[in-house]
Amino acid sequence: MNNIKIHDVGMRDGLQNEAKIVPTETKIKWIHKLIESNIDIIQIGSFVHPAKVPQMADTDDLFKYFSKIEHKPVLSGLLLNEKGMERAINCGVEMFCMGVSASDTHSKKNTGMETIEAQKRIIAIAQELIKLGHKVQVSVQSAFGCGFEGKISEEKVFEIVKSYIESGINNISLADTAGHAYPEQVTRMFAKIKNAYPNSVLTCHFHNTYGLGMSNCYSAINEGVEYFETAFGGLGGCPFTKVAAGNVCTEDLIHSINRNRNFEQINIDNLIEVSKQAEQFFEKKLEGYIYRAGKLNY
Amino acid sequence: MNNIKIHDVGMRDGLQNEAKIVPTETKIKWIHKLIESNIDIIQIGSFVHPAKVPQMADTDDLFKYFSKIEHKPVLSGLLLNEKGMERAINCGVEMFCMGVSASDTHSKKNTGMETIEAQKRIIAIAQELIKLGHKVQVSVQSAFGCGFEGKISEEKVFEIVKSYIESGINNISLADTAGHAYPEQVTRMFAKIKNAYPNSVLTCHFHNTYGLGMSNCYSAINEGVEYFETAFGGLGGCPFTKVAAGNVCTEDLIHSINRNRNFEQINIDNLIEVSKQAEQFFEKKLEGYIYRAGKLNY
Repeated sequence: MNNIKIHDVGMRDGLQNEAKIVPTETKIKWIHKLIESNIDIIQIGSFVHPAKVPQMADTDDLFKYFSKIEHKPVLSGLLLNEKGMERAINCGVEMFCMGVSASDTHSKKNTGMETIEAQKRIIAIAQELIKLGHKVQVSVQSAFGCGFEGKISEEKVFEIVKSYIESGINNISLADTAGHAYPEQVTRMFAKIKNAYPNSVLTCHFHNTYGLGMSNCYSAINEGVEYFETAFGGLGGCPFTKVAAGNVCTEDLIHSINRNRNFEQINIDNLIEVSKQAEQFFEKKLEGYIYRAGKLNY
Repeated sequence: MNNIKIHDVGMRDGLQNEAKIVPTETKIKWIHKLIESNIDIIQIGSFVHPAKVPQMADTDDLFKYFSKIEHKPVLSGLLLNEKGMERAINCGVEMFCMGVSASDTHSKKNTGMETIEAQKRIIAIAQELIKLGHKVQVSVQSAFGCGFEGKISEEKVFEIVKSYIESGINNISLADTAGHAYPEQVTRMFAKIKNAYPNSVLTCHFHNTYGLGMSNCYSAINEGVEYFETAFGGLGGCPFTKVAAGNVCTEDLIHSINRNRNFEQINIDNLIEVSKQAEQFFEKKLEGYIYRAGKLNY
């Protein structure tokens, strides 16, 4: 069995989809609790223009605050361009995450560029960060299907991964932005990458649009994927649709893995507490199960 | 890949947990739609005392009505004892389902008997029905864990299965009554049974208490389990707790399997329609995803 590591993205991918702004002091409280849970990586914000995503306006401040704290998990941030890279370097980001959408339509809507252009630009940024000695992860967004285009060619996704590897980027995430992934597809795609690049470090990121997030994680576990991007409470999903499309819930995944192997270094109670506080704050039931059902104690 | 068959238990396991009584004419309308969806088996009620579960009071009438209809899926009913068997035979049940809990505590609460006694009684009923030429399925309830006892010995579950097989009962279901099952356990238990009894016909039945229903189905699919007991809309779960613990959602499972193989004989739109009508009737969001998110059309 491979060593599974948790990268919680609730503070970024979860919160950015919520209209109600979380005050910085509340974020600090939640991040402290997440740190105490002993997960491996916490994504605490993204470097996007504050006018575009007001929920992320305090990202630099959060990094400045938390980068001074010792004995903590790795703190990651999402950046979209050169400007974001500068901000991220200046405020103490420890792991630099970025991505390119495998869907031209999605890529154009997000960046104004089709996949191939966005890919060149992101690879250049990633290479610069690697040269500076930083930890970098690059993802393929919409890797399993696209809300605009539907089917995404598995070959195209593989070619993007190949371009990352050939550019010296070894830490690669496949992100199921629209939640279209299904278990056999997850198996097929990660198996192909692991087979071609056995030394690559792979991450998966699934959304629950069709209820398959957890099943897809199990397929990824079975293919040797090591990093799981999940969100406390199962937060996430687009606020402009009625469809639940949250991230895989961090504490649900940990609780489940724990049933069959020892994952004791993680304190699940702290994660549950953050999810309960988020439920109170947003005044709505979150998608996660364990924070409501309680842990099984055997 | 094995041939997967769907046994929808929403009209029984789904409705029995709802306080609001569904009028018989509404049930008839829903069952007609389920029939038109072309799934393999529909469980339309249980033979329990009407005072105990008023929602099931019209079970005999429903069977009398639907047993006259031609070109339909198999209609199954759940029976608990000899009295139920008589009622079931008299109203035209086509598949007789019954079960024994692997948890002594659960068994005593349900039947007044510990597992071993309940087991003898149910096996005797099953054998009589088989002798009369009827189609019979016997389940192990609480097969993956118990809300009262916690852990259930996998050996005990296997011994119950063995007693069924040795009594000439070949159609066996493992039911995760409390929703404690996790994927590796599902793999382990079904693999052991299939290995010992390769000619057995196996069914699984999972609840979503901890968000693992779909993942457990995929483990079962990979072990060659053929029948999946699921409920339209993901209905089910105990009305006395706040915890979501619905069944695996029929249309979600079919939608998901469809992504990787041809399951075209099933008309998923009819299932979605029943779920939407149930959502309106019960005036609450159901646990299923597809009836809200819509199908993917590629």
